[in-house]
Amino acid sequence: MVTNQSQHISQQFEKELQDIRSQVLAMGGLVEQQVQNAMEALVNGDADLARSVISGDDEINKLEVSIDEDCIQIIAKRQPTASDLRLVTGILKTITDLERIGDESVRIARMALNLSEKDRPKKNYRELSNLGNHVRGMLRDALDAFARFDVDTALRTAREDREVDAEYESILRQLITYMMEDPRAVTRVLDMMWSARSLERIGDHAHNVCEHVIYLVEGKDVRHLSVEKMEKVIKGEQD
Amino acid sequence: MVTNQSQHISQQFEKELQDIRSQVLAMGGLVEQQVQNAMEALVNGDADLARSVISGDDEINKLEVSIDEDCIQIIAKRQPTASDLRLVTGILKTITDLERIGDESVRIARMALNLSEKDRPKKNYRELSNLGNHVRGMLRDALDAFARFDVDTALRTAREDREVDAEYESILRQLITYMMEDPRAVTRVLDMMWSARSLERIGDHAHNVCEHVIYLVEGKDVRHLSVEKMEKVIKGEQD
Repeated sequence: MVTNQSQHISQQFEKELQDIRSQVLAMGGLVEQQVQNAMEALVNGDADLARSVISGDDEINKLEVSIDEDCIQIIAKRQPTASDLRLVTGILKTITDLERIGDESVRIARMALNLSEKDRPKKNYRELSNLGNHVRGMLRDALDAFARFDVDTALRTAREDREVDAEYESILRQLITYMMEDPRAVTRVLDMMWSARSLERIGDHAHNVCEHVIYLVEGKDVRHLSVEKMEKVIKGEQD
Repeated sequence: MVTNQSQHISQQFEKELQDIRSQVLAMGGLVEQQVQNAMEALVNGDADLARSVISGDDEINKLEVSIDEDCIQIIAKRQPTASDLRLVTGILKTITDLERIGDESVRIARMALNLSEKDRPKKNYRELSNLGNHVRGMLRDALDAFARFDVDTALRTAREDREVDAEYESILRQLITYMMEDPRAVTRVLDMMWSARSLERIGDHAHNVCEHVIYLVEGKDVRHLSVEKMEKVIKGEQD
Protein backbone atom coordinates (compact mmCIF):
# COMPACT_ATOMS: atom_id res chain seq x y z
CA MET A 1 0.00 0.00 0.00
CA VAL A 2 2.81 2.34 0.94
CA THR A 3 4.49 2.00 -2.43
CA ASN A 4 1.27 2.33 -4.40
CA GLN A 5 0.35 5.53 -2.68
CA SER A 6 3.85 6.88 -2.98
CA GLN A 7 3.86 6.23 -6.71
CA HIS A 8 0.70 8.19 -7.23
CA ILE A 9 1.76 11.31 -5.45
CA SER A 10 1.51 14.31 -7.70
CA GLN A 11 4.70 16.00 -8.79
CA GLN A 12 3.51 19.17 -7.14
CA PHE A 13 3.21 17.36 -3.82
CA GLU A 14 6.70 15.88 -4.24
CA LYS A 15 8.01 19.37 -4.81
CA GLU A 16 6.31 20.68 -1.67
CA LEU A 17 7.81 17.91 0.43
CA GLN A 18 11.20 18.59 -1.13
CA ASP A 19 10.87 22.29 -0.30
CA ILE A 20 10.10 21.54 3.32
CA ARG A 21 13.07 19.20 3.58
CA SER A 22 15.33 21.91 2.17
CA GLN A 23 13.96 24.37 4.68
CA VAL A 24 14.67 21.95 7.53
CA LEU A 25 18.22 21.56 6.29
CA ALA A 26 18.60 25.34 6.02
CA MET A 27 17.32 25.67 9.58
CA GLY A 28 19.72 22.92 10.64
CA GLY A 29 22.61 24.76 9.01
CA LEU A 30 21.74 27.93 10.88
CA VAL A 31 21.45 26.08 14.17
CA GLU A 32 24.81 24.41 13.61
CA GLN A 33 26.33 27.83 12.97
CA GLN A 34 24.79 29.15 16.19
CA VAL A 35 26.35 26.30 18.19
CA GLN A 36 29.72 26.97 16.58
CA ASN A 37 29.55 30.72 17.17
CA ALA A 38 28.41 30.28 20.76
CA MET A 39 31.39 28.00 21.41
CA GLU A 40 33.81 30.41 19.73
CA ALA A 41 32.39 33.26 21.77
CA LEU A 42 32.84 31.19 24.92
CA VAL A 43 36.36 30.00 24.23
CA ASN A 44 37.68 33.33 22.92
CA GLY A 45 35.72 35.57 25.29
CA ASP A 46 34.20 37.28 22.25
CA ALA A 47 31.29 39.37 23.59
CA ASP A 48 30.24 40.67 20.16
CA LEU A 49 29.95 37.19 18.74
CA ALA A 50 27.98 36.12 21.82
CA ARG A 51 25.55 38.99 21.28
CA SER A 52 25.13 38.02 17.62
CA VAL A 53 24.20 34.47 18.69
CA ILE A 54 21.58 35.86 21.08
CA SER A 55 20.03 38.12 18.47
CA GLY A 56 20.31 35.40 15.79
CA ASP A 57 17.91 33.12 17.65
CA ASP A 58 14.96 35.09 16.33
CA GLU A 59 15.55 33.86 12.79
CA ILE A 60 15.58 30.25 13.97
CA ASN A 61 12.35 30.73 15.88
CA LYS A 62 10.72 32.22 12.80
CA LEU A 63 11.89 29.33 10.67
CA GLU A 64 10.41 26.87 13.14
CA VAL A 65 7.03 28.60 13.03
CA SER A 66 7.04 28.86 9.24
CA ILE A 67 8.09 25.23 8.59
CA ASP A 68 5.48 24.18 11.12
CA GLU A 69 2.80 26.08 9.21
CA ASP A 70 3.93 24.57 5.91
CA CYS A 71 3.73 21.06 7.37
CA ILE A 72 0.21 21.63 8.65
CA GLN A 73 -0.81 23.16 5.32
CA ILE A 74 0.50 20.08 3.54
CA ILE A 75 -1.39 17.76 5.87
CA ALA A 76 -4.61 19.73 5.35
CA LYS A 77 -4.25 20.12 1.59
CA ARG A 78 -2.57 16.88 0.51
CA GLN A 79 -3.83 14.55 3.21
CA PRO A 80 -0.72 12.43 3.08
CA THR A 81 -0.70 8.90 4.41
CA ALA A 82 1.93 6.26 5.18
CA SER A 83 5.50 7.31 4.50
CA ASP A 84 4.60 10.85 3.39
CA LEU A 85 2.67 11.45 6.58
CA ARG A 86 5.58 10.06 8.56
CA LEU A 87 7.90 12.46 6.78
CA VAL A 88 5.73 15.44 7.68
CA THR A 89 5.20 14.47 11.33
CA GLY A 90 8.88 13.50 11.60
CA ILE A 91 9.76 16.98 10.38
CA LEU A 92 7.41 18.56 12.93
CA LYS A 93 9.36 16.81 15.68
CA THR A 94 12.77 17.47 14.15
CA ILE A 95 12.28 21.22 14.04
CA THR A 96 11.22 21.25 17.70
CA ASP A 97 14.58 19.71 18.59
CA LEU A 98 16.47 22.06 16.27
CA GLU A 99 14.76 25.05 17.83
CA ARG A 100 15.74 23.85 21.30
CA ILE A 101 19.35 23.45 20.17
CA GLY A 102 19.08 27.09 19.15
CA ASP A 103 17.90 27.93 22.67
CA GLU A 104 20.83 26.08 24.23
CA SER A 105 23.21 28.03 21.97
CA VAL A 106 21.72 31.22 23.35
CA ARG A 107 22.29 29.93 26.88
CA ILE A 108 25.94 29.25 26.05
CA ALA A 109 26.25 32.70 24.49
CA ARG A 110 24.87 34.27 27.68
CA MET A 111 27.51 32.42 29.71
CA ALA A 112 30.12 33.56 27.17
CA LEU A 113 29.03 37.15 27.81
CA ASN A 114 29.40 36.72 31.58
CA LEU A 115 32.74 35.00 31.22
CA SER A 116 34.16 37.49 28.73
CA GLU A 117 34.46 39.94 31.63
CA LYS A 118 36.24 37.52 33.93
CA ASP A 119 39.62 35.85 34.31
CA ARG A 120 39.92 33.02 31.86
CA PRO A 121 42.16 30.01 32.55
CA LYS A 122 42.60 28.59 29.03
CA LYS A 123 42.91 24.98 30.09
CA ASN A 124 39.29 24.45 31.08
CA TYR A 125 38.07 25.95 27.86
CA ARG A 126 40.04 23.36 25.93
CA GLU A 127 37.92 20.59 27.39
CA LEU A 128 34.67 22.48 26.94
CA SER A 129 35.82 23.18 23.41
CA ASN A 130 36.42 19.46 22.79
CA LEU A 131 32.95 18.65 24.08
CA GLY A 132 31.57 21.40 21.83
CA ASN A 133 33.28 19.91 18.79
CA HIS A 134 32.00 16.47 19.63
CA VAL A 135 28.44 17.68 20.01
CA ARG A 136 28.64 19.77 16.86
CA GLY A 137 29.84 16.68 14.99
CA MET A 138 26.82 14.78 16.29
CA LEU A 139 24.50 17.53 15.12
CA ARG A 140 26.12 17.65 11.68
CA ASP A 141 25.85 13.88 11.30
CA ALA A 142 22.24 13.89 12.48
CA LEU A 143 21.40 16.51 9.85
CA ASP A 144 23.32 14.50 7.29
CA ALA A 145 21.30 11.41 8.19
CA PHE A 146 18.16 13.50 7.74
CA ALA A 147 19.32 14.85 4.37
CA ARG A 148 20.09 11.39 3.01
CA PHE A 149 17.43 9.41 4.90
CA ASP A 150 20.33 7.38 6.16
CA VAL A 151 19.40 5.06 9.02
CA ASP A 152 22.95 3.76 9.52
CA THR A 153 24.33 7.24 10.08
CA ALA A 154 21.41 7.99 12.38
CA LEU A 155 22.16 4.90 14.46
CA ARG A 156 25.89 5.56 14.59
CA THR A 157 25.28 9.15 15.62
CA ALA A 158 22.74 8.21 18.28
CA ARG A 159 25.40 5.92 19.73
CA GLU A 160 27.76 8.90 20.14
CA ASP A 161 25.49 10.38 22.75
CA ARG A 162 26.88 8.11 25.44
CA GLU A 163 30.43 9.30 24.84
CA VAL A 164 29.22 12.88 25.00
CA ASP A 165 27.56 12.12 28.33
CA ALA A 166 30.76 10.57 29.66
CA GLU A 167 32.80 13.59 28.51
CA TYR A 168 30.28 15.87 30.16
CA GLU A 169 30.45 13.95 33.45
CA SER A 170 34.22 14.15 33.43
CA ILE A 171 34.19 17.93 32.84
CA LEU A 172 31.66 18.26 35.64
CA ARG A 173 33.85 16.40 38.12
CA GLN A 174 36.81 18.56 37.21
CA LEU A 175 34.84 21.78 37.58
CA ILE A 176 33.58 20.66 41.00
CA THR A 177 37.18 20.20 42.10
CA TYR A 178 38.00 23.74 40.95
CA MET A 179 35.10 25.12 42.94
CA MET A 180 36.19 23.35 46.09
CA GLU A 181 39.77 24.49 45.68
CA ASP A 182 38.92 28.12 44.99
CA PRO A 183 35.57 29.27 46.36
CA ARG A 184 36.07 32.72 44.85
CA ALA A 185 35.88 31.11 41.43
CA VAL A 186 32.42 29.64 42.07
CA THR A 187 30.40 31.94 39.81
CA ARG A 188 32.90 31.70 36.97
CA VAL A 189 33.08 27.92 37.19
CA LEU A 190 29.29 27.71 37.39
CA ASP A 191 29.02 29.61 34.12
CA MET A 192 31.28 26.99 32.57
CA MET A 193 29.20 24.26 34.14
CA TRP A 194 25.96 25.61 32.67
CA SER A 195 27.69 25.78 29.30
CA ALA A 196 28.77 22.15 29.58
CA ARG A 197 25.21 21.24 30.53
CA SER A 198 23.87 23.03 27.45
CA LEU A 199 26.31 21.13 25.26
CA GLU A 200 25.17 17.88 26.79
CA ARG A 201 21.56 18.86 26.09
CA ILE A 202 22.45 19.67 22.48
CA GLY A 203 23.80 16.11 22.24
CA ASP A 204 20.43 14.84 23.52
CA HIS A 205 18.55 16.84 20.91
CA ALA A 206 20.87 15.60 18.13
CA HIS A 207 20.13 12.09 19.41
CA ASN A 208 16.40 12.86 19.16
CA VAL A 209 16.83 14.03 15.56
CA CYS A 210 18.41 10.64 14.80
CA GLU A 211 15.38 8.92 16.28
CA HIS A 212 13.10 11.02 14.10
CA VAL A 213 15.13 10.04 11.02
CA ILE A 214 14.78 6.37 11.90
CA TYR A 215 11.06 6.88 12.44
CA LEU A 216 10.45 8.63 9.17
CA VAL A 217 12.51 6.19 7.12
CA GLU A 218 11.60 2.93 8.83
CA GLY A 219 8.23 3.79 10.35
CA LYS A 220 9.47 2.57 13.70
CA ASP A 221 9.25 4.64 16.83
CA VAL A 222 12.56 4.03 18.60
CA ARG A 223 12.30 6.77 21.21
CA HIS A 224 13.09 5.80 24.77
CA LEU A 225 15.03 2.74 23.62
CA SER A 226 18.72 2.01 24.15
CA VAL A 227 20.84 2.07 20.98
CA GLU A 228 21.14 -1.73 21.17
CA LYS A 229 17.36 -2.07 21.24
CA MET A 230 17.05 0.48 18.43
CA GLU A 231 19.29 -1.70 16.27
CA LYS A 232 17.24 -4.79 17.05
CA VAL A 233 13.97 -3.04 16.23
CA ILE A 234 15.37 -1.85 12.91
CA LYS A 235 16.59 -5.31 12.00
CA GLY A 236 13.12 -6.64 12.86
CA GLU A 237 14.43 -8.64 15.81
CA GLN A 238 12.09 -6.89 18.20
CA ASP A 239 11.26 -9.05 21.19
CA MET B 1 -15.42 26.91 6.62
CA VAL B 2 -14.17 25.81 9.99
CA THR B 3 -17.68 25.52 11.40
CA ASN B 4 -19.08 23.72 8.36
CA GLN B 5 -16.43 21.09 8.48
CA SER B 6 -16.73 20.70 12.21
CA GLN B 7 -20.46 20.14 11.91
CA HIS B 8 -20.03 17.33 9.45
CA ILE B 9 -17.55 15.34 11.49
CA SER B 10 -18.81 11.87 12.12
CA GLN B 11 -19.70 10.94 15.66
CA GLN B 12 -17.07 8.23 15.54
CA PHE B 13 -14.41 10.81 14.73
CA GLU B 14 -15.61 13.03 17.57
CA LYS B 15 -15.28 10.07 19.88
CA GLU B 16 -11.73 9.36 18.72
CA LEU B 17 -10.70 12.95 19.32
CA GLN B 18 -12.34 12.83 22.72
CA ASP B 19 -10.45 9.64 23.56
CA ILE B 20 -7.14 11.21 22.65
CA ARG B 21 -7.88 14.26 24.77
CA SER B 22 -8.68 12.03 27.73
CA GLN B 23 -5.43 10.16 27.20
CA VAL B 24 -3.48 13.43 27.18
CA LEU B 25 -5.15 14.43 30.43
CA ALA B 26 -4.37 11.03 31.94
CA MET B 27 -0.75 11.46 30.87
CA GLY B 28 -0.78 14.97 32.32
CA GLY B 29 -2.11 13.63 35.62
CA LEU B 30 0.68 11.07 35.79
CA VAL B 31 3.30 13.67 34.98
CA GLU B 32 1.93 15.99 37.66
CA GLN B 33 2.15 13.13 40.15
CA GLN B 34 5.75 12.47 39.12
CA VAL B 35 6.67 16.10 39.77
CA GLN B 36 4.97 15.98 43.15
CA ASN B 37 6.63 12.70 44.15
CA ALA B 38 10.05 13.87 42.98
CA MET B 39 9.70 17.00 45.12
CA GLU B 40 8.52 15.01 48.14
CA ALA B 41 11.44 12.62 47.70
CA LEU B 42 13.80 15.60 47.54
CA VAL B 43 12.43 17.48 50.52
CA ASN B 44 12.00 14.45 52.78
CA GLY B 45 15.10 12.56 51.62
CA ASP B 46 12.86 9.65 50.66
CA ALA B 47 15.03 7.32 48.55
CA ASP B 48 12.25 4.78 47.90
CA LEU B 49 9.93 7.42 46.55
CA ALA B 50 12.78 8.77 44.38
CA ARG B 51 13.33 5.30 42.93
CA SER B 52 9.62 4.94 42.18
CA VAL B 53 9.72 8.21 40.23
CA ILE B 54 12.67 6.95 38.19
CA SER B 55 10.99 3.64 37.37
CA GLY B 56 7.64 5.38 36.77
CA ASP B 57 9.01 7.32 33.81
CA ASP B 58 8.63 4.30 31.58
CA GLU B 59 4.85 4.49 31.72
CA ILE B 60 4.92 8.13 30.67
CA ASN B 61 7.23 7.36 27.76
CA LYS B 62 4.89 4.59 26.62
CA LEU B 63 1.91 6.91 26.83
CA GLU B 64 3.72 9.47 24.70
CA VAL B 65 4.46 6.89 22.01
CA SER B 66 0.92 5.49 22.06
CA ILE B 67 -0.84 8.88 21.94
CA ASP B 68 1.54 9.87 19.17
CA GLU B 69 0.55 6.79 17.16
CA ASP B 70 -3.14 7.47 17.74
CA CYS B 71 -2.73 11.04 16.49
CA ILE B 72 -1.00 9.91 13.33
CA GLN B 73 -3.62 7.20 12.79
CA ILE B 74 -6.32 9.84 13.07
CA ILE B 75 -4.59 12.10 10.58
CA ALA B 76 -4.17 9.22 8.12
CA LYS B 77 -7.68 7.83 8.53
CA ARG B 78 -9.81 10.91 9.12
CA GLN B 79 -7.78 13.48 7.24
CA PRO B 80 -8.83 16.28 9.56
CA THR B 81 -8.58 19.90 8.52
CA ALA B 82 -8.89 23.28 10.22
CA SER B 83 -9.63 23.15 13.94
CA ASP B 84 -9.57 19.34 14.15
CA LEU B 85 -6.16 19.22 12.53
CA ARG B 86 -4.97 21.93 14.91
CA LEU B 87 -6.23 19.87 17.82
CA VAL B 88 -4.28 16.83 16.67
CA THR B 89 -1.02 18.67 15.93
CA GLY B 90 -1.43 20.68 19.13
CA ILE B 91 -1.68 17.41 21.03
CA LEU B 92 1.44 16.08 19.31
CA LYS B 93 3.35 19.08 20.65
CA THR B 94 1.73 18.99 24.08
CA ILE B 95 2.75 15.40 24.76
CA THR B 96 6.35 16.19 23.82
CA ASP B 97 6.41 18.82 26.55
CA LEU B 98 4.67 16.53 29.04
CA GLU B 99 7.21 13.79 28.35
CA ARG B 100 10.05 16.24 28.96
CA ILE B 101 8.48 17.29 32.26
CA GLY B 102 8.58 13.59 33.11
CA ASP B 103 12.31 13.58 32.29
CA GLU B 104 12.94 16.56 34.53
CA SER B 105 11.10 14.80 37.37
CA VAL B 106 13.49 11.88 36.94
CA ARG B 107 16.42 14.30 37.13
CA ILE B 108 15.05 15.72 40.38
CA ALA B 109 14.51 12.19 41.71
CA ARG B 110 18.16 11.36 40.93
CA MET B 111 19.27 14.39 42.91
CA ALA B 112 16.91 13.34 45.70
CA LEU B 113 18.66 9.96 45.78
CA ASN B 114 22.07 11.62 46.03
CA LEU B 115 20.90 14.02 48.67
CA SER B 116 19.10 11.41 50.76
CA GLU B 117 22.53 10.17 51.83
CA LYS B 118 23.84 13.59 52.82
CA ASP B 119 23.36 16.16 55.54
CA ARG B 120 20.19 18.09 54.93
CA PRO B 121 19.76 21.67 56.10
CA LYS B 122 15.98 22.04 56.07
CA LYS B 123 15.91 25.72 55.27
CA ASN B 124 17.06 25.45 51.66
CA TYR B 125 14.57 22.76 50.94
CA ARG B 126 11.77 25.05 52.02
CA GLU B 127 12.59 27.42 49.17
CA LEU B 128 13.03 24.63 46.64
CA SER B 129 9.76 23.26 47.90
CA ASN B 130 8.04 26.62 47.32
CA LEU B 131 9.40 26.74 43.79
CA GLY B 132 8.19 23.17 43.29
CA ASN B 133 4.68 24.08 44.42
CA HIS B 134 4.63 27.09 42.16
CA VAL B 135 5.72 25.08 39.15
CA ARG B 136 3.29 22.29 39.94
CA GLY B 137 0.52 24.86 40.12
CA MET B 138 1.51 26.11 36.66
CA LEU B 139 1.43 22.59 35.29
CA ARG B 140 -1.97 21.90 36.83
CA ASP B 141 -3.38 25.14 35.41
CA ALA B 142 -1.88 24.45 31.99
CA LEU B 143 -3.55 21.03 31.95
CA ASP B 144 -6.75 22.61 33.12
CA ALA B 145 -6.56 25.11 30.28
CA PHE B 146 -6.07 22.17 27.91
CA ALA B 147 -9.01 20.26 29.39
CA ARG B 148 -11.38 23.20 29.07
CA PHE B 149 -9.87 24.81 25.94
CA ASP B 150 -9.55 27.87 28.10
CA VAL B 151 -7.41 30.59 26.54
CA ASP B 152 -7.68 32.94 29.53
CA THR B 153 -6.30 30.35 31.92
CA ALA B 154 -3.57 29.53 29.38
CA LEU B 155 -2.56 33.19 29.18
CA ARG B 156 -2.66 33.71 32.94
CA THR B 157 -0.57 30.58 33.47
CA ALA B 158 1.96 31.53 30.80
CA ARG B 159 2.39 34.81 32.65
CA GLU B 160 3.40 32.90 35.83
CA ASP B 161 6.56 31.70 34.14
CA ARG B 162 8.28 34.99 34.81
CA GLU B 163 7.70 34.74 38.54
CA VAL B 164 9.01 31.19 38.47
CA ASP B 165 12.13 32.42 36.72
CA ALA B 166 12.62 35.15 39.32
CA GLU B 167 12.18 32.66 42.16
CA TYR B 168 14.68 30.35 40.49
CA GLU B 169 17.24 33.14 40.09
CA SER B 170 16.89 34.04 43.75
CA ILE B 171 17.41 30.43 44.87
CA LEU B 172 20.44 30.25 42.58
CA ARG B 173 22.02 33.33 44.14
CA GLN B 174 21.46 31.94 47.59
CA LEU B 175 22.95 28.58 46.71
CA ILE B 176 26.01 30.26 45.20
CA THR B 177 26.56 32.04 48.50
CA TYR B 178 26.40 28.71 50.35
CA MET B 179 28.98 27.23 48.04
CA MET B 180 31.36 30.11 48.57
CA GLU B 181 30.94 29.99 52.33
CA ASP B 182 31.40 26.24 52.62
CA PRO B 183 33.39 24.63 49.80
CA ARG B 184 32.89 21.18 51.33
CA ALA B 185 29.18 21.56 50.61
CA VAL B 186 29.74 22.10 46.87
CA THR B 187 28.43 18.73 45.61
CA ARG B 188 25.42 18.81 47.89
CA VAL B 189 24.52 22.36 46.91
CA LEU B 190 25.05 21.52 43.24
CA ASP B 191 22.49 18.72 43.52
CA MET B 192 20.05 21.27 44.86
CA MET B 193 20.98 23.64 42.06
CA TRP B 194 20.30 21.04 39.37
CA SER B 195 16.96 20.35 41.03
CA ALA B 196 16.08 24.04 40.96
CA ARG B 197 17.09 24.14 37.31
CA SER B 198 14.82 21.19 36.54
CA LEU B 199 11.93 22.95 38.24
CA GLU B 200 12.58 26.04 36.18
CA ARG B 201 12.57 23.90 33.02
CA ILE B 202 9.27 22.32 34.09
CA GLY B 203 7.88 25.84 34.28
CA ASP B 204 9.09 26.44 30.70
CA HIS B 205 7.38 23.28 29.48
CA ALA B 206 4.14 24.22 31.27
CA HIS B 207 4.42 27.58 29.53
CA ASN B 208 4.79 25.73 26.20
CA VAL B 209 1.65 23.71 26.92
CA CYS B 210 -0.21 27.00 27.38
CA GLU B 211 1.04 28.15 23.98
CA HIS B 212 -0.21 24.92 22.43
CA VAL B 213 -3.63 25.45 24.02
CA ILE B 214 -3.80 28.95 22.57
CA TYR B 215 -2.76 27.58 19.20
CA LEU B 216 -5.30 24.81 19.11
CA VAL B 217 -8.16 26.99 20.30
CA GLU B 218 -7.38 30.22 18.46
CA GLY B 219 -5.33 28.93 15.55
CA LYS B 220 -2.63 31.44 16.39
CA ASP B 221 0.97 30.43 16.85
CA VAL B 222 2.13 32.48 19.83
CA ARG B 223 5.43 30.72 20.47
CA HIS B 224 8.44 32.92 20.95
CA LEU B 225 6.27 35.92 21.86
CA SER B 226 6.19 37.78 25.15
CA VAL B 227 2.99 37.38 27.16
CA GLU B 228 2.04 40.98 26.27
CA LYS B 229 2.39 40.20 22.57
CA MET B 230 0.49 36.95 23.03
CA GLU B 231 -2.43 38.92 24.46
CA LYS B 232 -2.37 41.36 21.57
CA VAL B 233 -2.29 38.58 18.99
CA ILE B 234 -5.26 36.88 20.64
CA LYS B 235 -7.23 40.10 20.72
CA GLY B 236 -6.43 40.57 17.03
CA GLU B 237 -4.32 43.67 17.67
CA GLN B 238 -1.29 42.11 16.01
CA ASP B 239 1.04 44.71 14.58
